[in-house]
Amino acid sequence: MPSSAAIIIIGNEILSGKVKDENFHFLASELRKLGVALRFAATVPDEVEEIARVIRECSEKCDFVFTSGGVGPTHDDVTMKGIAMAFGLKTVPNEEMRDKIARHCGFEPSEIVLRMAELPEGARLLQVDGMNFPPVLVKNVYVFPGIPEFLRKKFDAIKERFRGEPYHSRLFYLNQDECYIAEALASVAGEFTDVEIGSYPKVGEKEFKVLVSLESRNDGALKGASERLLALLPPGIVVRVS
Amino acid sequence: MPSSAAIIIIGNEILSGKVKDENFHFLASELRKLGVALRFAATVPDEVEEIARVIRECSEKCDFVFTSGGVGPTHDDVTMKGIAMAFGLKTVPNEEMRDKIARHCGFEPSEIVLRMAELPEGARLLQVDGMNFPPVLVKNVYVFPGIPEFLRKKFDAIKERFRGEPYHSRLFYLNQDECYIAEALASVAGEFTDVEIGSYPKVGEKEFKVLVSLESRNDGALKGASERLLALLPPGIVVRVS
Repeated sequence: MPSSAAIIIIGNEILSGKVKDENFHFLASELRKLGVALRFAATVPDEVEEIARVIRECSEKCDFVFTSGGVGPTHDDVTMKGIAMAFGLKTVPNEEMRDKIARHCGFEPSEIVLRMAELPEGARLLQVDGMNFPPVLVKNVYVFPGIPEFLRKKFDAIKERFRGEPYHSRLFYLNQDECYIAEALASVAGEFTDVEIGSYPKVGEKEFKVLVSLESRNDGALKGASERLLALLPPGIVVRVS
Repeated sequence: MPSSAAIIIIGNEILSGKVKDENFHFLASELRKLGVALRFAATVPDEVEEIARVIRECSEKCDFVFTSGGVGPTHDDVTMKGIAMAFGLKTVPNEEMRDKIARHCGFEPSEIVLRMAELPEGARLLQVDGMNFPPVLVKNVYVFPGIPEFLRKKFDAIKERFRGEPYHSRLFYLNQDECYIAEALASVAGEFTDVEIGSYPKVGEKEFKVLVSLESRNDGALKGASERLLALLPPGIVVRVS
């Protein structure tokens, strides 16, 4: 079985539309390239109980859970408390994290700032060369900051641990709308059950009206489904295949 | 109590990173402007059971649920089935929708295409002048297509029905990082409990390092909290207030 994953975006600023999240799409694309099946994503407020509820659910269902946000030093950063509650753990001071925070601040940090070093029992700091604050792992939950630049750097540093069997895909660009292709797609989808077939109408695109995507971990099935689709589609409808 | 909402983005193409969702951020921003509190958002695959599970959860907890995607004529469009299952309803042919589909296709649509007209029992088509396919309402679930241009047009047409008491906000641009302001923020957050205070570090921004947002439906509380914050922050740290 391929690995499965969930993403949890944490932050009132995302739900209120004040900040546009960029981390979901980055992680989703990267996980796909790594061959990991992303099953679910959620965006939740900065509330301990709500974070705990979603973490618990995702951690049970998926191999990997990735969180973004809520790990800074301010009062609204409650991700670690939420993760601790999800697993019935206490948070305890992590000495290594305290040292890193003190070095970062450049002065003796206040008690409030040092709450950043309170991690769920058993949390591991994933060592990455030359990185001030490494990603934190609690059971199967990988904890990332919400700042996109930092999240990307940290994810890139550890992503090879998630790599699995790759997906193969083929894209068909069509010049008619979905009314004309629904039957062909349903027929191919019914016959090739290990090929995932998606159909995406695009507005305002000159070259094509619908993009059809065939994707599978089984390259032979993908080839068979592609040939069948080309045979079933109305003539002249395919603009391009890639 | 202000109205609450949840957003459910439906589609394998979003989870696989093939298509970048634009609808969540659009809806989140619009709901905020309308004074609606967005409590939760999820992205789920094109799977009836999974759609049903999340719809049921959100419909119970929130006043309004908005879905995006999965309403076209192809085999992977299963949103209506998911909504029906969430509420233990059957799907039944909707004559009005059948007529609209036939007009849109321009020829006698196939049985597969006509599955688009199978709606959960009791579904209402929200009449909007000059719109081919109106938004569909099932209990408190507003069903929108995934194509951003269509979703926006449909949402704009019905958004006034969601308008409530507005939020007031003030933004503080600061030239020091969060270590320096965490105590002041915690103090103001503790004193003014009906003011929501967020702190957002920004990388690669020349003018400021952190944006602090104060927001409330109570304008008086917002003014009080803003004055208190300015008094508590270290001198010279505020670049701009808006």
